[in-house]
Amino acid sequence: MQTRYFTITDYPTGTPERELFKLREEALAELAEGEVRVRNAWLSVDPYMRGRMSGVKTYIDPFELNAPLQGAAVGEVIESRDSRFAVGDKVRHMGGWRDIAQLSADQVEALPSIEVPDQAYLGVLGMPGMTAWTGLNIIAEMKEGDNVLVSAASGAVGSLAVQLAKAKGGTVVGIAGSQEKLDWLEARGVKAVSYKGKNAEQLTAELHDACPDGFDVYYENVGGDCLVAALNNLRVGARIAVCGMISRYNDTQPVEGPANLAMILVRRARMQGFIVFEHWDNYARFLEEVGPLVAKGEIEYEETVEEGLEQTPDAFLKLFTGANKGKMLVRL
Amino acid sequence: MQTRYFTITDYPTGTPERELFKLREEALAELAEGEVRVRNAWLSVDPYMRGRMSGVKTYIDPFELNAPLQGAAVGEVIESRDSRFAVGDKVRHMGGWRDIAQLSADQVEALPSIEVPDQAYLGVLGMPGMTAWTGLNIIAEMKEGDNVLVSAASGAVGSLAVQLAKAKGGTVVGIAGSQEKLDWLEARGVKAVSYKGKNAEQLTAELHDACPDGFDVYYENVGGDCLVAALNNLRVGARIAVCGMISRYNDTQPVEGPANLAMILVRRARMQGFIVFEHWDNYARFLEEVGPLVAKGEIEYEETVEEGLEQTPDAFLKLFTGANKGKMLVRL
Repeated sequence: MQTRYFTITDYPTGTPERELFKLREEALAELAEGEVRVRNAWLSVDPYMRGRMSGVKTYIDPFELNAPLQGAAVGEVIESRDSRFAVGDKVRHMGGWRDIAQLSADQVEALPSIEVPDQAYLGVLGMPGMTAWTGLNIIAEMKEGDNVLVSAASGAVGSLAVQLAKAKGGTVVGIAGSQEKLDWLEARGVKAVSYKGKNAEQLTAELHDACPDGFDVYYENVGGDCLVAALNNLRVGARIAVCGMISRYNDTQPVEGPANLAMILVRRARMQGFIVFEHWDNYARFLEEVGPLVAKGEIEYEETVEEGLEQTPDAFLKLFTGANKGKMLVRL
Repeated sequence: MQTRYFTITDYPTGTPERELFKLREEALAELAEGEVRVRNAWLSVDPYMRGRMSGVKTYIDPFELNAPLQGAAVGEVIESRDSRFAVGDKVRHMGGWRDIAQLSADQVEALPSIEVPDQAYLGVLGMPGMTAWTGLNIIAEMKEGDNVLVSAASGAVGSLAVQLAKAKGGTVVGIAGSQEKLDWLEARGVKAVSYKGKNAEQLTAELHDACPDGFDVYYENVGGDCLVAALNNLRVGARIAVCGMISRYNDTQPVEGPANLAMILVRRARMQGFIVFEHWDNYARFLEEVGPLVAKGEIEYEETVEEGLEQTPDAFLKLFTGANKGKMLVRL
């Protein structure tokens, strides 16, 4: 059986070009004992993947050149040599960027049985959703009534973060770009602030207007001017969860850090980076808490879907131009 | 009775000039019920006082113009109208920058009975010592065997921080300036790194040489290039306690923040600001743990002493030129 996959042959500098990604086809080896073969139905593309294209080990190993890229995917078992999986089982695994994945059964998990579309396990009930939940609850220790600021608030992570924060009863402010994204936030009771065409000073003033008492929690996705403006609007004892700095992923040289970092001291604030994969022990707790809300429609989520394996690199690159609303997915 | 005190008549921009400080003399009101009068023997000058001269509320109110400046002091009660204090009692209070202080007895505390010189309660067993202990133990949650980096490592706070860290058994690295300070550190088993004449990149390399495994704890006193270099040398899960950014206190305009702040994410690190006054509930615990070590000479401390009330502003200004070793004090 053949598999078609994307690979890269070099580590890019700056924003990757479409030409970086090569589609290859090769024959799969015969299935070994303990392995399963999965026909992927949905592929996930996520901003963190840019970090794996840098060629240096950050918090995760770089992608191997000329080997299939990796990422979350959902599919159906089409052949199994492991007693835990049968043909027809719906599963999630990290063998994305390809149509047919062949993996050790240890690296595959059955989809939970909550009544949601399969691809929800790549988004709102997958890594992005778990990232939002972990950042707010485990890292930032969000409490009832906390005022919460979320940057990249209409993205896959941010859009869940604002809804989880909203449920705690405080003022929730989301930063986003386009009018459509801002409208989506406002419709959910989130005060929406646009970063477009604004410097850090203007953004500082707008955040202050949106929440004059300041923020107890800042969910940091972005870096840059949003971070500067957020630091200026912290309450005493604020907690910042840093789950990514998407505005920096394609930078080719160091850029200025926030000149007002001393606000960490002035407001006795805490800033903490985290990688959701290291908190996966909490996944069952997250699923128990958030799964039913998603199934009942109390938490909404958006998807931006590209069609066909060939579109995977384009879907990935759109993450950095703000073209997606909610989770960016590829349907095979 | 007369009191002589220092005041300021304006909030300075940049590094304060000696002329900013005005010595005044006035008659004290008659002692009221519940008040004590103290003849100060030792005055403390500390970097945080610069923040109180900025005219804006940061984590502590600004000094009031034309009123006596404030700061920690140790002295002897010479008159009391409160049953808790008798003439001759040794006390500590915040009525510094003056020779005779008249205060509510509620703002005065008796010196503990540990066998140390009185002025130790302004330094190693006072606010600076408590700051070192709190930053390491409460904020950075230092554990046995942790590798610890301390900036401004020969100062009043840093010199205790390195010794407390050393007692936990890991590699301890201290950043300082002059050869004398570096020698002092090395004599205590601390690996000393000079910041003099080095940019962030060079400092990064030297810290790596001193502790190739990286740091679990960074005690941040300084900001600037030291912070950049420290961020580059964090271990996964590192904790940064931010108790001051002395290199920034006299800045007149925002300066670049650390361009590598994303290391917080890469190393899943935590950075937290704190103000020791908000953790004073732990003072008894600190005194119980550190007091005996100081009395037995197991923890050493240095003092730089200026003589006479008139020298108080000079003593304060010397804090920003690195002229002091250990605690800067004024003896009256």
